[in-house]
Amino acid sequence: MTTETLIITGGHVLQLGQDPGIIEANIRVNCITGKITNIDEDPVSAQQRDANDEIIRTLDAAGCVVMPGLVNAHTHAAMTLLRGYADDKPLQAWLREDIWPAEAEMTPTGVRAGTELAIVEMIRSGTTAFADMYFHVPEVVAAIKNAGVRARVGHGVVTAGKDDEAARNDLNKGLEVAQAYDGAADDRIQTAFMPHSLTTVGEEYLQEAVSEARQDNIPIHYHANETRSEVDPIVDNHNKRPLTYASGLDMLSSSDFLAHGVHLETDEIDQLAEAGASLVHCPASNMKLASGIAPIPALLDAGVTVALGTDGAASNNDLDMFDELRDAAMLGKIGADDAAAVPAAQAIHMATAGGADALGLPGGQIKEEAVADLIVVDLDSPHLTPTHNIISHLAYAARGSDVKHTVCDGTVLMQNREIQTIDVDAVVETAETQAQSLIQRMS
Amino acid sequence: MTTETLIITGGHVLQLGQDPGIIEANIRVNCITGKITNIDEDPVSAQQRDANDEIIRTLDAAGCVVMPGLVNAHTHAAMTLLRGYADDKPLQAWLREDIWPAEAEMTPTGVRAGTELAIVEMIRSGTTAFADMYFHVPEVVAAIKNAGVRARVGHGVVTAGKDDEAARNDLNKGLEVAQAYDGAADDRIQTAFMPHSLTTVGEEYLQEAVSEARQDNIPIHYHANETRSEVDPIVDNHNKRPLTYASGLDMLSSSDFLAHGVHLETDEIDQLAEAGASLVHCPASNMKLASGIAPIPALLDAGVTVALGTDGAASNNDLDMFDELRDAAMLGKIGADDAAAVPAAQAIHMATAGGADALGLPGGQIKEEAVADLIVVDLDSPHLTPTHNIISHLAYAARGSDVKHTVCDGTVLMQNREIQTIDVDAVVETAETQAQSLIQRMS
Repeated sequence: MTTETLIITGGHVLQLGQDPGIIEANIRVNCITGKITNIDEDPVSAQQRDANDEIIRTLDAAGCVVMPGLVNAHTHAAMTLLRGYADDKPLQAWLREDIWPAEAEMTPTGVRAGTELAIVEMIRSGTTAFADMYFHVPEVVAAIKNAGVRARVGHGVVTAGKDDEAARNDLNKGLEVAQAYDGAADDRIQTAFMPHSLTTVGEEYLQEAVSEARQDNIPIHYHANETRSEVDPIVDNHNKRPLTYASGLDMLSSSDFLAHGVHLETDEIDQLAEAGASLVHCPASNMKLASGIAPIPALLDAGVTVALGTDGAASNNDLDMFDELRDAAMLGKIGADDAAAVPAAQAIHMATAGGADALGLPGGQIKEEAVADLIVVDLDSPHLTPTHNIISHLAYAARGSDVKHTVCDGTVLMQNREIQTIDVDAVVETAETQAQSLIQRMS
Repeated sequence: MTTETLIITGGHVLQLGQDPGIIEANIRVNCITGKITNIDEDPVSAQQRDANDEIIRTLDAAGCVVMPGLVNAHTHAAMTLLRGYADDKPLQAWLREDIWPAEAEMTPTGVRAGTELAIVEMIRSGTTAFADMYFHVPEVVAAIKNAGVRARVGHGVVTAGKDDEAARNDLNKGLEVAQAYDGAADDRIQTAFMPHSLTTVGEEYLQEAVSEARQDNIPIHYHANETRSEVDPIVDNHNKRPLTYASGLDMLSSSDFLAHGVHLETDEIDQLAEAGASLVHCPASNMKLASGIAPIPALLDAGVTVALGTDGAASNNDLDMFDELRDAAMLGKIGADDAAAVPAAQAIHMATAGGADALGLPGGQIKEEAVADLIVVDLDSPHLTPTHNIISHLAYAARGSDVKHTVCDGTVLMQNREIQTIDVDAVVETAETQAQSLIQRMS
């Protein structure tokens, strides 16, 4: 029986795990199931298989690393429309004076355009899966469906500043979206219930909605302990730390993933570990908004699954996960006052397997029977010469523009830096137009 | 009279200064003098000039930013050969266990190969000038001469661990090199006397050599206050802070530039400001080696000229100054606990005009009569869309791979990402060979 097969040939294949390493192998993918069928270190057995298969496509990986697709575990994709709109301001002022007024003018068409721009940028820089918290989610879903990436999506619920009817409408939208789109796009899309944070959604609303989400086994994703000014009101009003408060609301389960976790006390790190909940570290956003330095070495030591996220493009300002994993290694060392903290392999693990684990999505490693979510990174460049240590290069010298091919779910999304699934020029042009008209509506 | 002219057409031209901005203009360069002759905002006068000139070359900058070439104000260029050789270790262990043993095996041919690799990487990422502290300086000079970049070079003097004869030999080499190569390569090369640091060169040697350097008006460049373990011995042995010690040795003058300055007390910041000496901030290296966070906002407030440097590739691990200026903005905010600290324009200023001022080299701004050290950065990319704010993009979203053309001293070094002055493939291949044979010699 012949199958539709994709073969990635001649690359150095990154193997994560306790003792990360590189093997020389061809990767064989079944394009129908989207799964890796073989990792052939033996050229003879590879040739025998070639004779039996109907090969439909070959990706050249000579002089390249083949590694798991990167997982951007916390972003607001459509915020690409606000990239560079406001910078150099702390979180609360930036949100209130710039971002929220702009988002109030964001239309479904704008969200579609911004999400498509984000996905183009992510595919070009090696991200194959992401978690998205935003609104007008049907547009987000449509963009993901066309582009071919994988995602866990949700509607960011805010009840603060709303009357009860508006609050309940938003809450219901958060639940409905999570119920409606789980399994969409050939199962590449999963969902979560996404209350914005513990301070922007009221306690009684959280109680009701979380209980409903749990009945449907829907994971929960929210911003937690990002800034001191987000922690203090909870401590003041509830006389407990935010994660104790979250735990009391049943918002700390093994399927849940929390963004940021900058200001965590030791007890809260232990609570995360015991609950099996994951944390998404956003080093660039935390630096740019001066939110603080998350205690990543302590979280990893406690056994917490740590993923990496870019956050929205407006607080980064790019969606390049190679930047993010370098930032994680760099900031981890400064934060721990220890150059051995967050070594290269750990940063790469967080950006791949850690991300997939946190989001509960397949991917994050290259092995037989795993989904073929993988990227090919070209090492033949002055800034990646010499090749003493490929893992070091991936953490400290590679960047998104070194990604040559991107594959998700067995489908080639980018080949030789040409995106195959969507029209990049049209996406860029539409995003520019939508961004400018958004700003015009505000003035 | 006709002149050989280079015209950079249709770009958004970055103007630095108190109130940075963008103008739409063509830039006209006299290729013989290497200087910018006109910044034409008026297309009619531009056309009249075109009719009179013998135009030899046009660089298309439509949809691009034209900005000053970036200045990498502290590096050890040939350390590209050790990129990724050892990571995730603190400075002293990393130097003693990995870097110094490797450097002991570095040959003149290796230094040439590593320096050429560094220059290729720098040209490709928009750096037109750099300061280099290394050894086998004649090879460094030859590489710079061929490649067409601008630099201030010196021999890194170390006397610690040497007998008096060897110490004096190294000291003399530091002085001889500074005297011999000043003005080399059509004046693109200037020199400095470069004692490695205040702890690795003995007090009596510093006294003698600095006095001699001053007689020839040679600037002094050294590592200062990089780590606590570099500060403590000076405080312990001399009962004074390092910059007070340096000042007493006449090593704090307006032509001098100090690398790092992570651990500075307020008095030392004032000393720098009063002396008019410059500081080269190396944020990536300081993060990677967990050296600490330099007090950049305080230095700038005090009026100190602050430049940016990548340090050697082994502690970064790239030489992309766009990374460095983003890191400076990011780390500055975290260090100051203030998202408004080190805003975009300030980071760009440090990477351009600040660098040129610190090194005492021409360049760093785009204006008539200035040297034509400039780069053209392509904005037509998903990650640089939309264009709300070009200055924000240059600080927070652009990267070295967005540089389209690089010009130094009126000569086009890279056009459409193709380097014009040296054979990149040969440089990469030679560097790889030299790096591998270096490591083999160590085992």
